[in-house]
This record gives sequence, C-alpha cells and structure tokens, in this order.
Amino acid sequence: MPSVNKIVVDWQRNFRFIGKDENNLTLSFDTSIKSGGDGTALSPMETLLACLGACTGMDIVLVMKKKRQNLIKFSVEVTGHRRDEDPMIYTDIEMKYILTGKGISKEAVERAIELSEEKYCSVGGMLKKAANIRTTYEIVEE
Amino acid sequence: MPSVNKIVVDWQRNFRFIGKDENNLTLSFDTSIKSGGDGTALSPMETLLACLGACTGMDIVLVMKKKRQNLIKFSVEVTGHRRDEDPMIYTDIEMKYILTGKGISKEAVERAIELSEEKYCSVGGMLKKAANIRTTYEIVEE
Repeated sequence: MPSVNKIVVDWQRNFRFIGKDENNLTLSFDTSIKSGGDGTALSPMETLLACLGACTGMDIVLVMKKKRQNLIKFSVEVTGHRRDEDPMIYTDIEMKYILTGKGISKEAVERAIELSEEKYCSVGGMLKKAANIRTTYEIVEE
Repeated sequence: MPSVNKIVVDWQRNFRFIGKDENNLTLSFDTSIKSGGDGTALSPMETLLACLGACTGMDIVLVMKKKRQNLIKFSVEVTGHRRDEDPMIYTDIEMKYILTGKGISKEAVERAIELSEEKYCSVGGMLKKAANIRTTYEIVEE
C-alpha cells in the first residue's frame, strides 16, 4: 500500500504561512522584505533546497553508519540556479557534501552518494526530473 | 541574470538536520520515531508538500489582493501519495484550497489558482514534472 503524507498550510498574514503535519509539527514560510514579505522565515523555494539537502543527508548518515564510518560533522551545501521567466524554477542545482571525521573512506563516501542519488533520495528523485543536479564532496580529516 | 539561492544543511544527531540560509534563517528536519528518527521536526518529504502549499498559497494571496477579494482565513491542504519502491517519490499530489471571507468571487479564486498553476508557482513548476497534481477549492462565506 502506497503511503500518504498530509500537510496543512495556514496563512497567517502578508506572505507568512505555517505548515503543520498530522503530529502537529510545524514550520514557517515567508518571503524576503525585498519581495514584499517580512523576512521572518525561509521562502518555499529556499526550503525546497533544504529538503533536498536533508533528504540526501539522511541517506548519507545511514549508509556511513552501516559502513562503520565515524562522522564527526557533516554538512550539505545546496545551491540552486533559477531561471528568469515564470515559473522561476531551478534549472541547475549543485550539492556539496562536506564530511568530517577520522579516516573516512573515499570509497564509502562515493558509494553513499551514489546510493542516495540513484536509489534512496525521494526529494532528489522528484527534483531531478526538473533540474540538473550535480554533486561534489569534500572529506575533512579530524 | 538568473538568481541563485543557497542553503547549508548541517547534521545535528541521528537523523536531525538544520537548514540555514544566507540571512541565518533556519528550519529543522527529522524523521518519525517509527523510521528511526526522534520525531522532532517534519521530514524532508513532508516539508516538500508544505513548500508546495506555501508557494502556491503566496500566489493566491497576491492575486486575491489584486482582485480586491477580502480573505479572512486561507489554508491549503496538501496530500501526497508515495509509491512503494525506492525512491519513494510522490506520484500523485492533491491540493485543496480553502478560502474564507465575505463575498469571495468564484471566478477570482479560479483565476488565481489557474495563474499559480500555469504561471507563477515555482515549486509546483518543478514538482509537476514528477507527479500528477490535482487541485480543488472550497469557498467559506463568513
């Protein structure tokens, strides 16, 4: 049986919205002051990039754990390039994985990224139908 | 010149991540306890639905304001149906707009939804390449 997610997004004021799931977990959205908003929260398109980074990030954490790689710090930098015309979608997205730890294996990192890209990452599985996604990584010895 | 958005997603612990934009606005991600997380925040795939609801919601608010329609309350319910196999993308997404106000015009609502769907909504412009998105609406007189 396919699983179902449900979110309700409530308008607060101006361009500010609150999203809520069935467990009453929430997140906020806004737009920048430059775009007529109040700049109190990330925009939907910024949040979209964060979804991608967090989704693939969770895959990497899981695979690295299975491969007994000891991550001390881990970040994903996600940069999206939007086209000029409406809808202003991302045409290109760059992701840089930065993995900090002691003796982290290059092969383990490459395999983890490959598994996320090709198999597990659901957000990436959707966004790559609309944008070119390129990935790089850096291992920091600590 | 195409515009660029940049987000850094930092791993905190287990499956918990924090996303941050260049203005230091943040949002959190986690997964459910059932999926091995701590259930402290929305998951990336839940947040993706919220992005869609907030993005189109902002379009609707703007168009309704231009059309001098007085919204008192406004929500978007977003339901995503995921497939079983990896990556567990949404194949179908339903959006229901619920607009509350005095004498809100059906035509204005339909036009606002049409403009968002076909022209302005960037998140929708990306996700509709991967999933079928269906919309309905309800006007509540108040």
